[in-house]
Amino acid sequence: MRTVVKFGGSSVADVEKMRHIAENLKTRKDKGEDLVVVVSAMGKTTNQLLAIANEAVKNPSKREVDMMISTGEQISIALLSMILNEMGAKAVSLTGFQAGIRTEGVHTKTKIIDIDIEIIEEKLQEGNIVVVAGFQGYNEIGEITTLGRGGSDTTAVALAAKLNCSCEIYTDVDGIYGIDPRLYPKARHLDEIDFEEMKEMAFLGSKVMEPRSVDIAQHYGVEIYVASAHEDKRGTYIKEVDKALESRSITGLSVAENVMMVTLNNLPVESISEVFISLAREEINIDMISQTTMSDGRTSLSFTASAEDKSAMEAIMHKIISPIEGVTMSTVTDIVKISVVGSGMRTQSGVAAKLFKLFADHAIQFMQVTTSEISISYIMKKSYKEKAVFIIAEDFQL
Amino acid sequence: MRTVVKFGGSSVADVEKMRHIAENLKTRKDKGEDLVVVVSAMGKTTNQLLAIANEAVKNPSKREVDMMISTGEQISIALLSMILNEMGAKAVSLTGFQAGIRTEGVHTKTKIIDIDIEIIEEKLQEGNIVVVAGFQGYNEIGEITTLGRGGSDTTAVALAAKLNCSCEIYTDVDGIYGIDPRLYPKARHLDEIDFEEMKEMAFLGSKVMEPRSVDIAQHYGVEIYVASAHEDKRGTYIKEVDKALESRSITGLSVAENVMMVTLNNLPVESISEVFISLAREEINIDMISQTTMSDGRTSLSFTASAEDKSAMEAIMHKIISPIEGVTMSTVTDIVKISVVGSGMRTQSGVAAKLFKLFADHAIQFMQVTTSEISISYIMKKSYKEKAVFIIAEDFQL
Repeated sequence: MRTVVKFGGSSVADVEKMRHIAENLKTRKDKGEDLVVVVSAMGKTTNQLLAIANEAVKNPSKREVDMMISTGEQISIALLSMILNEMGAKAVSLTGFQAGIRTEGVHTKTKIIDIDIEIIEEKLQEGNIVVVAGFQGYNEIGEITTLGRGGSDTTAVALAAKLNCSCEIYTDVDGIYGIDPRLYPKARHLDEIDFEEMKEMAFLGSKVMEPRSVDIAQHYGVEIYVASAHEDKRGTYIKEVDKALESRSITGLSVAENVMMVTLNNLPVESISEVFISLAREEINIDMISQTTMSDGRTSLSFTASAEDKSAMEAIMHKIISPIEGVTMSTVTDIVKISVVGSGMRTQSGVAAKLFKLFADHAIQFMQVTTSEISISYIMKKSYKEKAVFIIAEDFQL
Repeated sequence: MRTVVKFGGSSVADVEKMRHIAENLKTRKDKGEDLVVVVSAMGKTTNQLLAIANEAVKNPSKREVDMMISTGEQISIALLSMILNEMGAKAVSLTGFQAGIRTEGVHTKTKIIDIDIEIIEEKLQEGNIVVVAGFQGYNEIGEITTLGRGGSDTTAVALAAKLNCSCEIYTDVDGIYGIDPRLYPKARHLDEIDFEEMKEMAFLGSKVMEPRSVDIAQHYGVEIYVASAHEDKRGTYIKEVDKALESRSITGLSVAENVMMVTLNNLPVESISEVFISLAREEINIDMISQTTMSDGRTSLSFTASAEDKSAMEAIMHKIISPIEGVTMSTVTDIVKISVVGSGMRTQSGVAAKLFKLFADHAIQFMQVTTSEISISYIMKKSYKEKAVFIIAEDFQL
């Protein structure tokens, strides 16, 4: 049996925690399991490296940012391998490049296109626990690249897909809940969740998994087990769930905090495409879009995006609108996006109606709403967050 | 014109120092010079990383040590390239692997066997300042390796040899002195020094340059300029010096502090080769050897080595001598090696005689002495160091 096992930054934050992980890995290896271990950078290392870059220069070259921050995982894999070796477990570390993780796209946000798994297979056959640097790879001209947010999960799931095995992700929390327990302490722990629902929840703000890794898992049929790195408690299986089980209309609720809403007023209709093309070129993902066209051929355009992209987004918008008279821009960041997710919504009508009534009854105003096949999302002022989470959780028994 | 320029750890210890370097590089680049810049890890980074490894485990795997400490230079090259980019100088960083630096030998102590310079040539032709990680390379199976002590100088000189250009090494001191000015404040600054003399001085303890890099420079005819990274003062050229200039009998004096002397008593003569073969296998360099054979076929063997190898050396010796009855081992570390170097010694006799007389006159006892074609070295107690340096410096006007 072989398994890809992934540990996030807080699970490898110090030598003590690494030793704890190493002991478990050794026990499993001694029982005959083939293990590929994916680790993130220790604790806050990546942010510390980014801080150094940002203090040194205003706009660090992204190629060099990748060169710099990829050292974080390189230190983790070396340290974990040393500890495993010292315990008598044969282990060998591989950087993203050495592990054959081929990527493409813009530096700091690349995507895995394929993995040449020969080296990993070879190291496994030699009896090694193979410790692979998460979050990183290389591009077609041999440069070091990173995968962006949630990259280590993506590395783990992609490796499991190529190695044709399951994937375990150990993290700070003991699995997936209907709502983040920090928001709603009575939140229900899920023993299993369907790929589609997990993806939607992740996309809409649940921080346990990134949507892209769930997407790969679904596409290649990789079963993911998410569990606590610190406690021996039952986790959550993310897999293809039998549709007969879909009796619940809502599986979960996600809150995305780091959101901004941008509004452009008096924009000529013909400039709309330029806005989205420019944002796409800089790989700024936009989310909810609403648009109202006036009688004079001008339009009011709103969209939401991650607040992290604020300065980049404003620079782009400024370039576009400054030559056009009368256009104004406003950016709001004290907002949240609250989303409810459930594959049962496909077949059960009335969820949206119930939510609109709940909000009206409790005087919660929202600024924007979008729906997908299995979710509904609302943008609202941060001040409404707690009340909205509570009334939805109670009403839908999450 | 092209030049390889190298900066050591203290010259790139913080962002401010890197900015200072970057400004100079940009000025030179703007004047049309092609620059390949080799940098070490920032300040004490390498030692800090080694400390992490040594705290985590007793005997860190050397493969993983290389994986870990090579991140130090990777951070430097990324940061320096970012700063250059921000100043409007096109620059690109390359790890040892990316720069094509092929090595062989034991991890943490590998040697450069060749450099595939295509990538560097390509990046230069694209108009880049090419910033290369010193001290590191890769081996025949694609593992990351490091070059050991003085490795960044070796990287710089080897690159200059392959790129067919000269090499500038910027460091804490403003060049080469006859004696370390910290030992003898009146020490004479040398405007130039011959490869052979520099090599001998470096080998015998002068810390400014490592002998291996001078050796490569001499072999490929690479002229090295050693100067201060902090002050605009005249440095020292290391090159082939016209033999007619060799009027001085002694060019310099070196003191090696970190020395141990190992003595094995009652060793069977047939075990001597085993001692040296075992040390060579572990790549422990030994230096001065003396041996006295007794009438019973047993021998007293002494040799000196770097005190850093003490625990490794003692472990090896213990294995060899423990099965043999009567053999004892002692290790002394409160000693120094004082060496005088000068290519004039080849042709001028009497230097050795003068030194022996000086030591006798001043009641300085030495424990061992060796001579080479252009140097004489004495092992003595640390307590004699200052007096010995002073009397030699005064007598030979260094």
